[in-house]
Amino acid sequence: MAGTGQLAKAERLRALHAPGRLLILPCAWDAASARLFEASGFAAVGTTSAGIAATLGFPDGEKIAFDDLLAVVRRIVASVDVPVSVDAEAGFARSAAEVAANMRRILDAGAVGINIEDEDHERSGQGALHPVEAMLDRIRGVREMGQAAGIPFFINARTDAIRLSAGDDMRAAHDEAVRRASAYGAAGADCVFVPGDLDLAAIRLLVQQIPYGLNIVAKETTPPVAELRDIGVRRLSLGSGPMRATMGLTAQLAGEILAQGTYRTCFDGAMPYGDLQRLLARG
Amino acid sequence: MAGTGQLAKAERLRALHAPGRLLILPCAWDAASARLFEASGFAAVGTTSAGIAATLGFPDGEKIAFDDLLAVVRRIVASVDVPVSVDAEAGFARSAAEVAANMRRILDAGAVGINIEDEDHERSGQGALHPVEAMLDRIRGVREMGQAAGIPFFINARTDAIRLSAGDDMRAAHDEAVRRASAYGAAGADCVFVPGDLDLAAIRLLVQQIPYGLNIVAKETTPPVAELRDIGVRRLSLGSGPMRATMGLTAQLAGEILAQGTYRTCFDGAMPYGDLQRLLARG
Repeated sequence: MAGTGQLAKAERLRALHAPGRLLILPCAWDAASARLFEASGFAAVGTTSAGIAATLGFPDGEKIAFDDLLAVVRRIVASVDVPVSVDAEAGFARSAAEVAANMRRILDAGAVGINIEDEDHERSGQGALHPVEAMLDRIRGVREMGQAAGIPFFINARTDAIRLSAGDDMRAAHDEAVRRASAYGAAGADCVFVPGDLDLAAIRLLVQQIPYGLNIVAKETTPPVAELRDIGVRRLSLGSGPMRATMGLTAQLAGEILAQGTYRTCFDGAMPYGDLQRLLARG
Repeated sequence: MAGTGQLAKAERLRALHAPGRLLILPCAWDAASARLFEASGFAAVGTTSAGIAATLGFPDGEKIAFDDLLAVVRRIVASVDVPVSVDAEAGFARSAAEVAANMRRILDAGAVGINIEDEDHERSGQGALHPVEAMLDRIRGVREMGQAAGIPFFINARTDAIRLSAGDDMRAAHDEAVRRASAYGAAGADCVFVPGDLDLAAIRLLVQQIPYGLNIVAKETTPPVAELRDIGVRRLSLGSGPMRATMGLTAQLAGEILAQGTYRTCFDGAMPYGDLQRLLARG
Protein backbone atom coordinates (compact mmCIF):
# COMPACT_ATOMS: atom_id res chain seq x y z
CA MET A 1 0.00 0.00 0.00
CA ALA A 2 2.79 2.45 0.88
CA GLY A 3 3.45 3.40 -2.74
CA THR A 4 4.25 6.73 -4.34
CA GLY A 5 0.59 7.76 -4.31
CA GLN A 6 0.48 7.45 -0.56
CA LEU A 7 3.83 9.19 -0.19
CA ALA A 8 2.50 12.13 -2.20
CA LYS A 9 -0.60 12.27 -0.02
CA ALA A 10 1.50 12.28 3.14
CA GLU A 11 3.62 15.13 1.80
CA ARG A 12 0.47 16.98 0.79
CA LEU A 13 -1.03 16.65 4.27
CA ARG A 14 2.23 17.97 5.75
CA ALA A 15 2.27 20.93 3.35
CA LEU A 16 -1.28 21.81 4.37
CA HIS A 17 0.07 22.47 7.89
CA ALA A 18 2.84 24.84 6.77
CA PRO A 19 3.33 28.02 8.85
CA GLY A 20 0.91 30.74 7.78
CA ARG A 21 -1.70 28.21 6.65
CA LEU A 22 -4.80 27.00 8.45
CA LEU A 23 -6.07 23.56 7.49
CA ILE A 24 -9.80 23.11 8.04
CA LEU A 25 -10.22 19.38 8.56
CA PRO A 26 -13.77 18.02 8.19
CA CYS A 27 -14.19 14.75 10.03
CA ALA A 28 -16.02 12.00 8.15
CA TRP A 29 -17.99 9.16 9.69
CA ASP A 30 -18.44 7.05 6.57
CA ALA A 31 -17.54 7.00 2.87
CA ALA A 32 -20.50 9.19 1.88
CA SER A 33 -19.56 12.04 4.21
CA ALA A 34 -15.89 11.78 3.18
CA ARG A 35 -16.84 11.92 -0.49
CA LEU A 36 -19.11 14.90 0.16
CA PHE A 37 -16.41 16.77 2.09
CA GLU A 38 -13.95 16.28 -0.77
CA ALA A 39 -16.54 17.35 -3.33
CA SER A 40 -17.26 20.44 -1.21
CA GLY A 41 -13.65 21.54 -1.60
CA PHE A 42 -11.81 20.51 1.57
CA ALA A 43 -8.14 19.72 0.92
CA ALA A 44 -7.98 16.78 3.33
CA VAL A 45 -10.41 14.61 5.27
CA GLY A 46 -10.23 13.46 8.88
CA THR A 47 -12.42 11.03 10.78
CA THR A 48 -14.52 11.39 13.93
CA SER A 49 -14.18 8.61 16.46
CA ALA A 50 -17.58 9.43 17.99
CA GLY A 51 -19.22 9.47 14.56
CA ILE A 52 -17.70 6.22 13.32
CA ALA A 53 -18.49 4.47 16.60
CA ALA A 54 -22.10 5.68 16.37
CA THR A 55 -22.56 4.41 12.81
CA LEU A 56 -21.41 1.00 14.09
CA GLY A 57 -23.79 1.17 17.07
CA PHE A 58 -21.37 2.07 19.85
CA PRO A 59 -20.56 5.06 22.04
CA ASP A 60 -17.23 6.86 21.64
CA GLY A 61 -14.13 5.79 23.58
CA GLU A 62 -12.50 2.74 21.96
CA LYS A 63 -15.66 0.63 22.37
CA ILE A 64 -15.54 -0.59 18.74
CA ALA A 65 -13.23 -3.32 17.46
CA PHE A 66 -10.07 -1.89 15.91
CA ASP A 67 -10.66 -4.10 12.84
CA ASP A 68 -14.04 -2.43 12.35
CA LEU A 69 -12.39 1.00 12.45
CA LEU A 70 -9.88 -0.19 9.83
CA ALA A 71 -12.70 -1.38 7.56
CA VAL A 72 -14.30 2.08 7.70
CA VAL A 73 -10.94 3.76 7.08
CA ARG A 74 -10.37 1.62 3.99
CA ARG A 75 -13.74 2.66 2.60
CA ILE A 76 -13.09 6.34 3.31
CA VAL A 77 -9.63 6.20 1.71
CA ALA A 78 -11.12 4.47 -1.35
CA SER A 79 -13.74 7.21 -1.67
CA VAL A 80 -11.48 10.26 -1.86
CA ASP A 81 -8.30 11.44 -3.55
CA VAL A 82 -7.31 13.89 -0.79
CA PRO A 83 -5.14 12.82 2.17
CA VAL A 84 -6.96 11.07 5.03
CA SER A 85 -6.04 11.49 8.70
CA VAL A 86 -7.59 9.06 11.19
CA ASP A 87 -8.77 9.76 14.72
CA ALA A 88 -7.08 6.79 16.38
CA GLU A 89 -8.24 7.76 19.91
CA ALA A 90 -5.51 6.50 22.30
CA GLY A 91 -4.26 3.87 19.84
CA PHE A 92 -6.52 0.97 20.85
CA ALA A 93 -3.69 -0.64 22.85
CA ARG A 94 -1.67 -0.25 26.06
CA SER A 95 1.99 -0.55 25.10
CA ALA A 96 3.83 1.79 22.75
CA ALA A 97 4.78 -1.18 20.57
CA GLU A 98 1.17 -2.31 20.22
CA VAL A 99 0.06 1.24 19.45
CA ALA A 100 2.74 1.53 16.74
CA ALA A 101 1.61 -1.79 15.24
CA ASN A 102 -1.98 -0.55 15.15
CA MET A 103 -0.93 2.71 13.52
CA ARG A 104 0.98 0.70 10.92
CA ARG A 105 -2.32 -0.99 10.07
CA ILE A 106 -3.93 2.44 9.67
CA LEU A 107 -1.08 3.42 7.34
CA ASP A 108 -1.54 0.17 5.42
CA ALA A 109 -5.24 1.04 5.09
CA GLY A 110 -4.14 4.08 3.08
CA ALA A 111 -4.32 6.88 5.63
CA VAL A 112 -1.36 9.25 5.96
CA GLY A 113 -1.82 10.63 9.45
CA ILE A 114 -3.46 10.13 12.80
CA ASN A 115 -4.70 11.83 15.92
CA ILE A 116 -3.47 10.09 19.02
CA GLU A 117 -4.75 11.26 22.38
CA ASP A 118 -3.66 10.97 25.99
CA GLU A 119 -7.02 10.10 27.50
CA ASP A 120 -6.80 6.74 29.27
CA HIS A 121 -9.92 4.92 28.10
CA GLU A 122 -9.53 2.18 30.71
CA ARG A 123 -10.07 4.88 33.30
CA SER A 124 -12.63 6.85 31.32
CA GLY A 125 -15.25 8.78 33.22
CA GLN A 126 -12.54 9.65 35.70
CA GLY A 127 -10.89 12.21 33.44
CA ALA A 128 -7.65 10.24 33.59
CA LEU A 129 -4.73 10.89 31.27
CA HIS A 130 -1.89 8.54 30.39
CA PRO A 131 1.40 9.57 32.05
CA VAL A 132 3.37 12.00 29.89
CA GLU A 133 6.24 9.53 29.48
CA ALA A 134 3.90 6.81 28.22
CA MET A 135 2.54 9.24 25.63
CA LEU A 136 6.04 10.25 24.53
CA ASP A 137 6.93 6.56 24.03
CA ARG A 138 3.86 6.19 21.83
CA ILE A 139 4.70 9.24 19.74
CA ARG A 140 8.29 8.07 19.25
CA GLY A 141 7.06 4.59 18.35
CA VAL A 142 4.65 5.90 15.72
CA ARG A 143 7.35 8.17 14.30
CA GLU A 144 9.75 5.22 13.94
CA MET A 145 6.95 3.18 12.36
CA GLY A 146 6.41 5.87 9.71
CA GLN A 147 10.12 6.06 8.98
CA ALA A 148 10.32 2.27 8.63
CA ALA A 149 7.36 2.35 6.24
CA GLY A 150 8.92 5.11 4.18
CA ILE A 151 5.95 7.42 4.68
CA PRO A 152 6.15 10.76 6.53
CA PHE A 153 3.11 9.71 8.56
CA PHE A 154 1.60 12.83 10.14
CA ILE A 155 1.24 12.65 13.92
CA ASN A 156 -1.29 14.98 15.51
CA ALA A 157 -0.83 14.48 19.25
CA ARG A 158 -3.79 15.42 21.36
CA THR A 159 -3.96 16.27 25.01
CA ASP A 160 -7.30 16.04 26.77
CA ALA A 161 -6.00 18.01 29.74
CA ILE A 162 -8.45 20.87 29.16
CA ARG A 163 -11.33 18.85 27.71
CA LEU A 164 -11.47 16.46 30.66
CA SER A 165 -11.06 19.20 33.26
CA ALA A 166 -14.18 21.15 32.37
CA GLY A 167 -15.44 22.79 35.53
CA ASP A 168 -12.25 22.14 37.50
CA ASP A 169 -9.32 24.52 37.86
CA MET A 170 -9.07 25.82 34.30
CA ARG A 171 -5.81 27.65 34.89
CA ALA A 172 -4.12 24.42 36.00
CA ALA A 173 -5.68 22.55 33.09
CA HIS A 174 -4.37 25.17 30.65
CA ASP A 175 -0.86 24.91 32.07
CA GLU A 176 -0.99 21.11 31.93
CA ALA A 177 -2.10 21.27 28.29
CA VAL A 178 0.81 23.57 27.43
CA ARG A 179 3.27 21.31 29.25
CA ARG A 180 1.97 18.16 27.57
CA ALA A 181 1.56 19.61 24.08
CA SER A 182 5.08 21.03 24.18
CA ALA A 183 6.50 17.69 25.30
CA TYR A 184 4.57 15.86 22.56
CA GLY A 185 5.94 18.25 19.94
CA ALA A 186 9.48 17.80 21.25
CA ALA A 187 9.05 14.01 21.00
CA GLY A 188 8.25 14.30 17.29
CA ALA A 189 4.55 15.07 16.95
CA ASP A 190 3.95 17.14 13.79
CA CYS A 191 1.06 19.10 15.27
CA VAL A 192 -0.50 19.24 18.73
CA PHE A 193 -4.22 19.17 19.38
CA VAL A 194 -5.85 20.82 22.39
CA PRO A 195 -9.62 20.25 22.25
CA GLY A 196 -11.89 22.12 24.62
CA ASP A 197 -14.20 25.12 24.90
CA LEU A 198 -11.66 27.84 24.16
CA ASP A 199 -12.22 31.53 23.51
CA LEU A 200 -9.97 33.61 21.29
CA ALA A 201 -7.78 34.75 24.20
CA ALA A 202 -7.21 31.19 25.40
CA ILE A 203 -6.40 29.99 21.89
CA ARG A 204 -3.96 32.88 21.34
CA LEU A 205 -2.24 32.03 24.60
CA LEU A 206 -1.85 28.39 23.52
CA VAL A 207 -0.36 29.48 20.19
CA GLN A 208 2.12 31.72 22.03
CA GLN A 209 3.06 29.20 24.71
CA ILE A 210 3.35 26.02 22.62
CA PRO A 211 6.28 26.06 20.15
CA TYR A 212 4.58 23.66 17.72
CA GLY A 213 1.69 23.87 15.27
CA LEU A 214 -1.63 24.03 17.12
CA ASN A 215 -4.86 22.23 16.27
CA ILE A 216 -8.17 23.16 17.89
CA VAL A 217 -11.68 21.77 17.48
CA ALA A 218 -14.71 23.73 16.27
CA LYS A 219 -17.40 24.28 18.90
CA GLU A 220 -20.53 26.46 19.04
CA THR A 221 -18.44 29.27 20.55
CA THR A 222 -15.28 28.93 18.42
CA PRO A 223 -14.16 32.20 16.78
CA PRO A 224 -14.57 32.34 12.97
CA VAL A 225 -11.93 30.77 10.73
CA ALA A 226 -10.39 34.13 9.74
CA GLU A 227 -9.65 35.03 13.37
CA LEU A 228 -8.05 31.65 13.99
CA ARG A 229 -5.87 32.05 10.91
CA ASP A 230 -4.85 35.53 12.02
CA ILE A 231 -3.54 34.33 15.37
CA GLY A 232 -1.65 31.41 13.82
CA VAL A 233 -3.77 28.31 14.48
CA ARG A 234 -2.51 25.60 12.13
CA ARG A 235 -5.47 23.19 12.02
CA LEU A 236 -9.18 23.49 12.80
CA SER A 237 -10.86 20.11 13.19
CA LEU A 238 -14.63 19.93 12.85
CA GLY A 239 -14.67 16.90 15.15
CA SER A 240 -18.00 15.19 15.64
CA GLY A 241 -19.87 18.45 14.91
CA PRO A 242 -21.07 17.64 11.38
CA MET A 243 -22.10 14.09 12.31
CA ARG A 244 -23.96 15.40 15.35
CA ALA A 245 -25.62 17.98 13.09
CA THR A 246 -26.99 15.15 10.94
CA MET A 247 -28.25 13.33 14.04
CA GLY A 248 -29.96 16.50 15.25
CA LEU A 249 -31.65 16.94 11.89
CA THR A 250 -32.72 13.28 11.81
CA ALA A 251 -34.28 13.62 15.27
CA GLN A 252 -36.07 16.77 14.13
CA LEU A 253 -37.46 15.28 10.90
CA ALA A 254 -38.53 12.16 12.78
CA GLY A 255 -40.34 14.30 15.32
CA GLU A 256 -42.16 16.26 12.61
CA ILE A 257 -43.31 13.12 10.81
CA LEU A 258 -44.51 11.44 14.03
CA ALA A 259 -46.13 14.53 15.57
CA GLN A 260 -47.47 16.42 12.54
CA GLY A 261 -47.45 13.77 9.83
CA THR A 262 -45.58 16.07 7.43
CA TYR A 263 -42.17 15.90 5.76
CA ARG A 264 -40.94 19.48 5.47
CA THR A 265 -37.79 19.00 7.60
CA CYS A 266 -37.02 15.83 5.67
CA PHE A 267 -37.27 17.25 2.17
CA ASP A 268 -36.70 21.02 2.35
CA GLY A 269 -32.92 20.70 2.17
CA ALA A 270 -32.47 17.08 1.08
CA MET A 271 -29.88 16.20 -1.53
CA PRO A 272 -31.79 14.97 -4.60
CA TYR A 273 -31.48 11.22 -5.24
CA GLY A 274 -29.75 11.81 -8.58
CA ASP A 275 -27.17 14.06 -6.93
CA LEU A 276 -26.43 11.39 -4.33
CA GLN A 277 -25.98 8.81 -7.08
CA ARG A 278 -23.62 11.08 -8.99
CA LEU A 279 -21.63 11.92 -5.85
CA LEU A 280 -20.91 8.24 -5.24
CA ALA A 281 -20.43 7.25 -8.88
CA ARG A 282 -16.71 7.88 -9.12
CA GLY A 283 -13.78 5.80 -10.29
CA MET B 1 -30.92 -16.85 15.30
CA ALA B 2 -34.52 -17.77 14.46
CA GLY B 3 -35.56 -18.00 18.12
CA THR B 4 -38.70 -16.88 19.92
CA GLY B 5 -37.46 -13.28 20.03
CA GLN B 6 -37.28 -13.14 16.28
CA LEU B 7 -40.63 -14.89 15.92
CA ALA B 8 -42.23 -12.28 18.15
CA LYS B 9 -40.67 -9.49 16.10
CA ALA B 10 -41.97 -11.02 12.86
CA GLU B 11 -45.46 -11.24 14.30
CA ARG B 12 -45.18 -7.68 15.56
CA LEU B 13 -44.17 -6.40 12.11
CA ARG B 14 -47.14 -8.24 10.60
CA ALA B 15 -49.54 -6.77 13.18
CA LEU B 16 -48.29 -3.27 12.35
CA HIS B 17 -49.71 -3.78 8.83
CA ALA B 18 -53.19 -4.82 9.99
CA PRO B 19 -56.15 -3.30 8.12
CA GLY B 20 -57.00 0.17 9.45
CA ARG B 21 -53.39 0.83 10.50
CA LEU B 22 -50.70 2.83 8.74
CA LEU B 23 -47.12 1.87 9.52
CA ILE B 24 -44.64 4.72 9.08
CA LEU B 25 -41.36 2.99 8.32
CA PRO B 26 -38.22 5.12 8.73
CA CYS B 27 -35.35 3.74 6.70
CA ALA B 28 -31.98 3.58 8.45
CA TRP B 29 -28.57 3.71 6.80
CA ASP B 30 -26.48 2.69 9.80
CA ALA B 31 -26.81 1.67 13.44
CA ALA B 32 -26.92 5.28 14.68
CA SER B 33 -29.87 6.27 12.51
CA ALA B 34 -31.70 3.03 13.40
CA ARG B 35 -31.16 3.64 17.10
CA LEU B 36 -32.34 7.24 16.73
CA PHE B 37 -35.48 6.19 14.84
CA GLU B 38 -36.36 3.70 17.56
CA ALA B 39 -35.70 6.27 20.28
CA SER B 40 -37.93 8.75 18.39
CA GLY B 41 -40.85 6.36 18.73
CA PHE B 42 -41.16 4.48 15.44
CA ALA B 43 -42.56 0.98 15.91
CA ALA B 44 -40.31 -0.66 13.30
CA VAL B 45 -37.21 0.25 11.30
CA GLY B 46 -36.49 -0.32 7.63
CA THR B 47 -33.30 0.25 5.66
CA THR B 48 -32.53 2.38 2.61
CA SER B 49 -30.50 0.71 -0.11
CA ALA B 50 -29.31 4.07 -1.45
CA GLY B 51 -28.30 5.22 2.01
CA ILE B 52 -26.45 2.04 2.99
CA ALA B 53 -24.66 1.93 -0.37
CA ALA B 54 -23.61 5.57 0.06
CA THR B 55 -22.18 4.98 3.55
CA LEU B 56 -20.06 2.21 2.00
CA GLY B 57 -18.95 4.46 -0.86
CA PHE B 58 -21.18 3.15 -3.68
CA PRO B 59 -24.17 4.33 -5.68
CA ASP B 60 -27.52 2.58 -5.28
CA GLY B 61 -28.46 -0.45 -7.37
CA GLU B 62 -26.80 -3.65 -6.05
CA LYS B 63 -23.30 -2.18 -6.47
CA ILE B 64 -22.25 -3.21 -2.94
CA ALA B 65 -21.26 -6.74 -1.91
CA PHE B 66 -24.18 -8.62 -0.38
CA ASP B 67 -21.92 -9.59 2.55
CA ASP B 68 -21.36 -5.90 3.27
CA LEU B 69 -25.12 -5.33 3.34
CA LEU B 70 -25.47 -8.23 5.78
CA ALA B 71 -22.82 -6.73 8.06
CA VAL B 72 -24.76 -3.46 8.21
CA VAL B 73 -28.04 -5.32 8.81
CA ARG B 74 -26.48 -7.20 11.74
CA ARG B 75 -25.39 -3.92 13.32
CA ILE B 76 -28.81 -2.34 12.82
CA VAL B 77 -30.60 -5.36 14.28
CA ALA B 78 -28.23 -5.32 17.27
CA SER B 79 -28.99 -1.65 17.86
CA VAL B 80 -32.77 -1.80 18.18
CA ASP B 81 -35.50 -3.86 19.83
CA VAL B 82 -38.16 -3.11 17.21
CA PRO B 83 -38.62 -5.31 14.10
CA VAL B 84 -36.24 -4.60 11.21
CA SER B 85 -37.23 -4.88 7.54
CA VAL B 86 -34.42 -4.81 4.95
CA ASP B 87 -34.48 -3.22 1.52
CA ALA B 88 -33.02 -6.17 -0.40
CA GLU B 89 -33.30 -4.45 -3.82
CA ALA B 90 -33.89 -7.23 -6.37
CA GLY B 91 -32.34 -9.92 -4.15
CA PHE B 92 -28.70 -9.63 -5.26
CA ALA B 93 -29.04 -12.72 -7.44
CA ARG B 94 -30.60 -13.95 -10.69
CA SER B 95 -32.39 -17.21 -9.89
CA ALA B 96 -35.29 -17.55 -7.46
CA ALA B 97 -33.30 -20.16 -5.52
CA GLU B 98 -30.33 -17.83 -5.10
CA VAL B 99 -32.62 -14.99 -4.07
CA ALA B 100 -34.26 -17.20 -1.44
CA ALA B 101 -30.83 -18.23 -0.13
CA ASN B 102 -29.82 -14.58 0.17
CA MET B 103 -33.06 -13.72 1.97
CA ARG B 104 -32.37 -16.60 4.38
CA ARG B 105 -29.11 -14.88 5.23
CA ILE B 106 -31.01 -11.66 5.91
CA LEU B 107 -33.35 -13.61 8.18
CA ASP B 108 -30.34 -15.19 9.91
CA ALA B 109 -28.94 -11.66 10.42
CA GLY B 110 -32.00 -10.99 12.59
CA ALA B 111 -34.30 -9.09 10.24
CA VAL B 112 -37.94 -10.17 9.97
CA GLY B 113 -38.92 -8.81 6.58
CA ILE B 114 -37.70 -7.50 3.27
CA ASN B 115 -38.51 -5.33 0.31
CA ILE B 116 -37.88 -7.10 -2.95
CA GLU B 117 -38.24 -5.17 -6.18
CA ASP B 118 -38.73 -5.99 -9.85
CA GLU B 119 -36.16 -3.61 -11.27
CA ASP B 120 -33.57 -5.56 -13.26
CA HIS B 121 -30.26 -4.09 -12.10
CA GLU B 122 -28.32 -5.78 -14.88
CA ARG B 123 -30.31 -3.63 -17.29
CA SER B 124 -30.43 -0.54 -15.09
CA GLY B 125 -30.60 2.83 -16.75
CA GLN B 126 -32.95 1.25 -19.28
CA GLY B 127 -35.89 1.16 -16.91
CA ALA B 128 -36.12 -2.59 -17.31
CA LEU B 129 -38.22 -4.79 -15.07
CA HIS B 130 -37.86 -8.52 -14.44
CA PRO B 131 -40.62 -10.53 -16.15
CA VAL B 132 -43.67 -10.94 -13.89
CA GLU B 133 -43.25 -14.74 -13.76
CA ALA B 134 -39.64 -14.42 -12.60
CA MET B 135 -40.78 -12.10 -9.80
CA LEU B 136 -43.57 -14.49 -8.79
CA ASP B 137 -41.03 -17.33 -8.53
CA ARG B 138 -38.90 -15.16 -6.26
CA ILE B 139 -41.82 -14.26 -4.01
CA ARG B 140 -42.87 -17.93 -3.73
CA GLY B 141 -39.27 -18.91 -3.01
CA VAL B 142 -38.91 -16.38 -0.21
CA ARG B 143 -42.28 -17.43 1.26
CA GLU B 144 -41.16 -21.07 1.35
CA MET B 145 -37.86 -20.03 2.88
CA GLY B 146 -39.67 -18.24 5.73
CA GLN B 147 -41.92 -21.24 6.33
CA ALA B 148 -38.89 -23.56 6.42
CA ALA B 149 -37.19 -21.24 8.92
CA GLY B 150 -40.30 -21.12 11.11
CA ILE B 151 -40.52 -17.32 10.87
CA PRO B 152 -43.45 -15.49 9.23
CA PHE B 153 -40.93 -13.44 7.24
CA PHE B 154 -42.70 -10.33 5.90
CA ILE B 155 -42.48 -9.88 2.14
CA ASN B 156 -43.03 -6.39 0.80
CA ALA B 157 -42.99 -6.81 -2.99
CA ARG B 158 -42.16 -3.69 -4.92
CA THR B 159 -42.88 -2.82 -8.49
CA ASP B 160 -40.86 -0.09 -10.14
CA ALA B 161 -43.31 0.15 -13.03
CA ILE B 162 -44.27 3.74 -12.17
CA ARG B 163 -40.92 4.90 -10.75
CA LEU B 164 -38.96 3.87 -13.85
CA SER B 165 -41.54 5.26 -16.28
CA ALA B 166 -41.35 8.86 -15.14
CA GLY B 167 -42.10 11.04 -18.15
CA ASP B 168 -43.45 8.19 -20.26
CA ASP B 169 -47.06 7.11 -20.58
CA MET B 170 -48.16 7.39 -16.92
CA ARG B 171 -51.54 5.75 -17.52
CA ALA B 172 -49.87 2.63 -18.91
CA ALA B 173 -47.34 2.66 -16.06
CA HIS B 174 -50.17 2.89 -13.52
CA ASP B 175 -51.98 -0.04 -15.08
CA GLU B 176 -48.78 -2.08 -15.19
CA ALA B 177 -48.14 -1.31 -11.50
CA VAL B 178 -51.66 -2.47 -10.60
CA ARG B 179 -51.25 -5.64 -12.65
CA ARG B 180 -47.87 -6.47 -11.14
CA ALA B 181 -48.72 -5.55 -7.54
CA SER B 182 -51.89 -7.65 -7.69
CA ALA B 183 -49.95 -10.62 -9.06
CA TYR B 184 -47.28 -10.25 -6.38
CA GLY B 185 -49.94 -10.21 -3.67
CA ALA B 186 -51.61 -13.28 -5.13
CA ALA B 187 -48.24 -15.09 -5.10
CA GLY B 188 -47.90 -14.51 -1.38
CA ALA B 189 -46.44 -11.05 -0.84
CA ASP B 190 -47.71 -9.59 2.46
CA CYS B 191 -47.73 -6.02 1.21
CA VAL B 192 -47.08 -4.41 -2.17
CA PHE B 193 -44.95 -1.35 -2.67
CA VAL B 194 -45.48 1.12 -5.52
CA PRO B 195 -42.85 3.89 -5.28
CA GLY B 196 -43.20 6.99 -7.44
CA ASP B 197 -44.36 10.58 -7.43
CA LEU B 198 -48.02 9.99 -6.62
CA ASP B 199 -50.71 12.48 -5.72
CA LEU B 200 -53.63 11.65 -3.44
CA ALA B 201 -55.92 10.67 -6.36
CA ALA B 202 -53.33 8.28 -7.80
CA ILE B 203 -52.70 6.70 -4.40
CA ARG B 204 -56.43 6.29 -3.76
CA LEU B 205 -56.83 4.60 -7.13
CA LEU B 206 -54.02 2.17 -6.30
CA VAL B 207 -55.65 1.33 -2.95
CA GLN B 208 -58.95 0.67 -4.74
CA GLN B 209 -57.49 -1.35 -7.60
CA ILE B 210 -54.96 -3.52 -5.72
CA PRO B 211 -56.58 -6.07 -3.38
CA TYR B 212 -53.55 -6.18 -1.05
CA GLY B 213 -52.01 -3.83 1.51
CA LEU B 214 -50.33 -0.89 -0.22
CA ASN B 215 -46.99 0.70 0.65
CA ILE B 216 -45.94 4.06 -0.80
CA VAL B 217 -42.80 6.14 -0.35
CA ALA B 218 -42.65 9.65 1.08
CA LYS B 219 -41.66 12.36 -1.41
CA GLU B 220 -41.70 16.16 -1.31
CA THR B 221 -45.23 16.13 -2.69
CA THR B 222 -46.69 13.20 -0.71
CA PRO B 223 -49.95 14.00 1.11
CA PRO B 224 -49.72 14.17 4.93
CA VAL B 225 -49.86 10.95 6.97
CA ALA B 226 -53.44 11.52 8.13
CA GLU B 227 -54.73 11.65 4.54
CA LEU B 228 -52.87 8.47 3.65
CA ARG B 229 -54.35 6.71 6.66
CA ASP B 230 -57.82 7.90 5.75
CA ILE B 231 -57.68 6.36 2.28
CA GLY B 232 -56.30 3.07 3.56
CA VAL B 233 -52.56 3.10 2.78
CA ARG B 234 -50.95 0.39 4.91
CA ARG B 235 -47.30 1.45 4.96
CA LEU B 236 -45.48 4.73 4.33
CA SER B 237 -41.74 4.24 3.78
CA LEU B 238 -39.47 7.21 4.24
CA GLY B 239 -37.01 5.69 1.76
CA SER B 240 -33.73 7.51 1.27
CA GLY B 241 -35.34 10.84 2.27
CA PRO B 242 -33.87 11.14 5.79
CA MET B 243 -30.40 10.04 4.66
CA ARG B 244 -30.53 12.52 1.78
CA ALA B 245 -31.64 15.18 4.26
CA THR B 246 -28.45 14.56 6.26
CA MET B 247 -26.36 14.79 3.09
CA GLY B 248 -28.04 18.06 2.16
CA LEU B 249 -27.33 19.47 5.61
CA THR B 250 -23.70 18.29 5.48
CA ALA B 251 -23.22 20.00 2.10
CA GLN B 252 -24.77 23.16 3.52
CA LEU B 253 -22.64 23.26 6.68
CA ALA B 254 -19.51 22.51 4.63
CA GLY B 255 -20.36 25.37 2.31
CA GLU B 256 -20.85 27.80 5.19
CA ILE B 257 -17.54 26.86 6.81
CA LEU B 258 -15.60 27.12 3.54
CA ALA B 259 -17.28 30.29 2.26
CA GLN B 260 -17.97 32.24 5.46
CA GLY B 261 -15.71 30.56 7.99
CA THR B 262 -18.57 30.17 10.46
CA TYR B 263 -20.30 27.16 12.00
CA ARG B 264 -23.95 28.14 12.47
CA THR B 265 -25.40 25.41 10.22
CA CYS B 266 -23.16 22.87 11.90
CA PHE B 267 -24.06 23.63 15.50
CA ASP B 268 -27.49 25.30 15.55
CA GLY B 269 -29.35 22.00 15.58
CA ALA B 270 -26.59 19.52 16.41
CA MET B 271 -27.25 16.72 18.87
CA PRO B 272 -25.04 17.40 21.90
CA TYR B 273 -22.11 15.00 22.30
CA GLY B 274 -23.46 13.68 25.60
CA ASP B 275 -26.84 12.93 24.02
CA LEU B 276 -25.15 10.97 21.23
CA GLN B 277 -23.18 8.97 23.79
CA ARG B 278 -26.34 8.20 25.77
CA LEU B 279 -28.25 7.23 22.61
CA LEU B 280 -25.65 4.61 21.74
CA ALA B 281 -24.98 3.42 25.29
CA ARG B 282 -27.57 0.66 25.46
CA GLY B 283 -27.43 -2.98 26.35
